[in-house]
Amino acid sequence: MKKQVYAGIDLGGTKILALILDENGTVLKKTEAATHAQEGADAVIGRMIELIREGLDESYQLASIGVATAGTLNSGEGVVAYASNLGWTNVPLGTKLREAFGVPVNLENDANAAAYGEWAAGAGRGTKDCVYVTVSTGIGAGIVSGGKLVRGRDSSAGELGHITIDWKGPKCLCGNVGCLETYASGTAIGRRANQMAADLPDQAALLIEKAGGEAITSRHVAEAAAEGDELSVRILEEAGQALGAGMVSIIHAMNPEVVIIGGGASSIGAPLLEPMHRYIADHGIGTMARGVKFVSPLLGKEAGAIGAALLVRE
Amino acid sequence: MKKQVYAGIDLGGTKILALILDENGTVLKKTEAATHAQEGADAVIGRMIELIREGLDESYQLASIGVATAGTLNSGEGVVAYASNLGWTNVPLGTKLREAFGVPVNLENDANAAAYGEWAAGAGRGTKDCVYVTVSTGIGAGIVSGGKLVRGRDSSAGELGHITIDWKGPKCLCGNVGCLETYASGTAIGRRANQMAADLPDQAALLIEKAGGEAITSRHVAEAAAEGDELSVRILEEAGQALGAGMVSIIHAMNPEVVIIGGGASSIGAPLLEPMHRYIADHGIGTMARGVKFVSPLLGKEAGAIGAALLVRE
Repeated sequence: MKKQVYAGIDLGGTKILALILDENGTVLKKTEAATHAQEGADAVIGRMIELIREGLDESYQLASIGVATAGTLNSGEGVVAYASNLGWTNVPLGTKLREAFGVPVNLENDANAAAYGEWAAGAGRGTKDCVYVTVSTGIGAGIVSGGKLVRGRDSSAGELGHITIDWKGPKCLCGNVGCLETYASGTAIGRRANQMAADLPDQAALLIEKAGGEAITSRHVAEAAAEGDELSVRILEEAGQALGAGMVSIIHAMNPEVVIIGGGASSIGAPLLEPMHRYIADHGIGTMARGVKFVSPLLGKEAGAIGAALLVRE
Repeated sequence: MKKQVYAGIDLGGTKILALILDENGTVLKKTEAATHAQEGADAVIGRMIELIREGLDESYQLASIGVATAGTLNSGEGVVAYASNLGWTNVPLGTKLREAFGVPVNLENDANAAAYGEWAAGAGRGTKDCVYVTVSTGIGAGIVSGGKLVRGRDSSAGELGHITIDWKGPKCLCGNVGCLETYASGTAIGRRANQMAADLPDQAALLIEKAGGEAITSRHVAEAAAEGDELSVRILEEAGQALGAGMVSIIHAMNPEVVIIGGGASSIGAPLLEPMHRYIADHGIGTMARGVKFVSPLLGKEAGAIGAALLVRE
């Protein structure tokens, strides 16, 4: 008898990652290719089909395909309504993959798929209520409640980078004001550092040196903070407190057992995360904030594809 | 053959409401009694048992009991860990009811049970993703995602009155700062009115007259606003915008299809809700904020008991 396997694909703007998993979520095969979105949707879908075929061998019986992708999805109909990173409008991706393999296909928002993957097979395994937050250029997130992915009406739930921490705060690109992301993302940390360097060039000497004439980035701030640079420590302290303020809202709304923090934030580490933890301890409702476990993700770049594969069975 | 029925109880600090429902959620029988919490837990549980017995007749077969109650619950073990309104600590309510009737018993947070009731049998019926917010003395809420109640680790999820809209804002009783509730609850509206009356007695003449020497309440503000009082309109405008800011965060986090707004806010109406709607239209991410239906609750004070009864079957 053939072994039942599940395909999970992470369709990104630059790369396609395809995994073949067994029923326990163990990765059996991994294939990847450049997306080359400029060649058009049919070419990209052709490459996805090829990657899945490469991953299958004669002893495998493909049971389903899950795809994690950015953009606005119409999951029910298997359509990518709009994906700016691919230049796609109304691409019937689900139908095409279904026709090629004759198995059920599910499309999922990439941040949500990654959250589900980490919950089901990574750092959130064994829990029921889990929030996954990635702090990098922006702040993305996904929520699992009672063992189910929180999808919302348009599969767009979990935009936790765009919850407000200051309703009188500065405008965010999303149209809202005072979004968590405008205070605590890598972009926000870099922007703040460049402001400070313009205002207080003496105090920012190490940052300016590290940037070598280019714009200061959050990586420079993290490096400088690790070397004890006072201004950088202060910038990360502020961003960490803002992250804490966002986390308090998330904890009060979702009452999670585990919060997984990924992205650049986990590599910055203590200078960002300690102020966050202090803020949560000082501001969270005790019964809800105490005992929340903060952990790092375990699945790396495969989380989205693993989550997409496992979500088909939900 | 006897008819399968489901008991739902709303255990409040002053009143116990008991309903008997059929499998469609239709209320067959309604009984109530004063709680008299000062007589102790055994007396209160005895009254709950009596109320259920009164509601049952010979043609009914009781299938389960659901209880909606305030406080910290250990739902799995059927224990009310702490309920300040009842003076209860570690009361094994679930066990006692199970012993009395020999059926499964489920305890649920009262705000969450009410949200589930409105979703399953009231204003949210037929949807999958629904948030229920009550704006009265405080701001309470409950969330249904994908047709499941969002409970969280300790059945405490949905504390949306305590999400932050200003992380540099004033302290809330909960320990956090700048909570939605400190800007947009009935209490907040009254507090703001009293402040304004102290600062600008001329402009607050109508409010001061309505209060007749007592503290101004949100009810006075609503009445005065309905009569065109400028200061009152301005106070409700501010509170409505704050409510909008909270709603934007909730919409970005949960991507709901329907938001049910209950409590005093629905009776204040336009002077509070129009600024809220304007704020959401101006600040929400378009694809998520557009098309969210805002509706009033339908079940009144029975929502909690109905939700508790129906949740046992989840």
